[in-house]
Amino acid sequence: MSSSPSATGHTIAFQGERGAYSEAAAFKFCPAAVPRPCETFEEVFRLVGEGTTDLGIVPFENSIGGSIHRNFDLLLEHDLPIVAEVELRIVHCLLANRGTELSSVRRIYSHPQALAQCEQFLRGMTGVEVVATYDTAGSAKLIRSNALPEEAAIASGQAATVFDLEILATGIEDFSDNITRFLLLGSRNVSEGAFGVPDKTTIVFSLRSVPGALFRALRSFADRQIDLSKLESRPLRGRPWEYLFFADLGIGRHEERCRDALGALDDSVAFVRVLGSYCRARDGGPGTPPDGA
Amino acid sequence: MSSSPSATGHTIAFQGERGAYSEAAAFKFCPAAVPRPCETFEEVFRLVGEGTTDLGIVPFENSIGGSIHRNFDLLLEHDLPIVAEVELRIVHCLLANRGTELSSVRRIYSHPQALAQCEQFLRGMTGVEVVATYDTAGSAKLIRSNALPEEAAIASGQAATVFDLEILATGIEDFSDNITRFLLLGSRNVSEGAFGVPDKTTIVFSLRSVPGALFRALRSFADRQIDLSKLESRPLRGRPWEYLFFADLGIGRHEERCRDALGALDDSVAFVRVLGSYCRARDGGPGTPPDGA
Repeated sequence: MSSSPSATGHTIAFQGERGAYSEAAAFKFCPAAVPRPCETFEEVFRLVGEGTTDLGIVPFENSIGGSIHRNFDLLLEHDLPIVAEVELRIVHCLLANRGTELSSVRRIYSHPQALAQCEQFLRGMTGVEVVATYDTAGSAKLIRSNALPEEAAIASGQAATVFDLEILATGIEDFSDNITRFLLLGSRNVSEGAFGVPDKTTIVFSLRSVPGALFRALRSFADRQIDLSKLESRPLRGRPWEYLFFADLGIGRHEERCRDALGALDDSVAFVRVLGSYCRARDGGPGTPPDGA
Repeated sequence: MSSSPSATGHTIAFQGERGAYSEAAAFKFCPAAVPRPCETFEEVFRLVGEGTTDLGIVPFENSIGGSIHRNFDLLLEHDLPIVAEVELRIVHCLLANRGTELSSVRRIYSHPQALAQCEQFLRGMTGVEVVATYDTAGSAKLIRSNALPEEAAIASGQAATVFDLEILATGIEDFSDNITRFLLLGSRNVSEGAFGVPDKTTIVFSLRSVPGALFRALRSFADRQIDLSKLESRPLRGRPWEYLFFADLGIGRHEERCRDALGALDDSVAFVRVLGSYCRARDGGPGTPPDGA
């Protein structure tokens, strides 16, 4: 087992089959990556936690569909640091077995997020059954294996190559500004800053039941000119209508202002945890880790 | 067309088939309601907008799964006021055609949110295909119509009665604190306060690109001791990584403090809209509207 990061290649766990968007994001992060397909997001978190893979990559947010909440929940359940982020432009294609005509398609498989992102296209496909699956590329694999002329899948163009399918339509997403933000999760031996000097910190916190609690929590950052680029609420299980807040701060946690702000989170906050401090991957991969890890 | 509210009964549009949770919430709001099933949430908004029904009811948030984002988006696209809210405890059942054994089930249909809420139960059903549909009660209708012994649906116990199905398992949701919050949308001739004195106001706003913009927006409410019971972010389409914020304020908008706070939203806010000011429905229905509308 080799799990220390190097410039030459990382083993990166991702959810889905070969040809998944997560795999494309892994290659964007590190062209020499060795991708490791997983059936579920849970498995990605588990493999990284065990140190079986150096890294894991999971989608967190799509510019159209919003957050992938399951991964916020998993981030909280596990104790894996976010070590980098990657953005990927999403182009959905309708794939089918060779020789299939668009008009003969009667059943379309894909992941619920992908189906939601192609709503206009699907609305035009009257009389077609839409089936939600665990994965876009997995849907491509499924129709290839079923080998039925009436079935199609929404997946990446790369999945067509992987499973030798025909592309019946491309760019079928409703909005062209369709970008997914992926986060890289590191195993214990990936040190903070291994992929560049952190300029972003993701935290999660819950509030005490005091008036203006959220306002008071945010004041710690505002008072120190720390930009809050995202704030996402998730239900707190077992406490209906109470929330966890996930926040992205535009500053690395090694900076004094960030440490001060976190220290100043006063009695308005019941709990706070830093989920990682990292920077966005440069195109063409992370290069040589600056700390030589 | 009679679309003015009365204590004796409202026509209430809801998404789904008879037996849907939304229908149960409509009856909780008004036991004498005349429910009007719709295929989509869009249709609910449209019927209310046209005045074809007095009211519409849509789920907005589940205590486990979180927000139903599609309805936040629709609330923004349409101009229908929120006029009341209702909470409903969700108990999911596995339904099948009479004579079906649990062990012979090979395919389970339901709405993606219901599937997500029964994850543990579904994980125990190995080798079973899970199919996402537009509606829980619609899935019950579908398996009744297919009449296949290997098919089941996750829906309410009421849907079993409506479609004459057998309940194979009940309470199969992962968490017992499973509550859905529904909002009632009013047509133009339902006046604010028709169902009780508003003690809650829902707004949506977007931020200018200035430092600490969210903090500055929330200050308007914190400075006036207005409680913020929920804050939800949604992607702003066409502007990746910019957001709309939906906020619930614990005050009716007729109160001076609320008007002051909205007026004081300064140059940190690019846009703000009040989506409704309302109160929670008392058990047993809204009773006589206080303003006699």
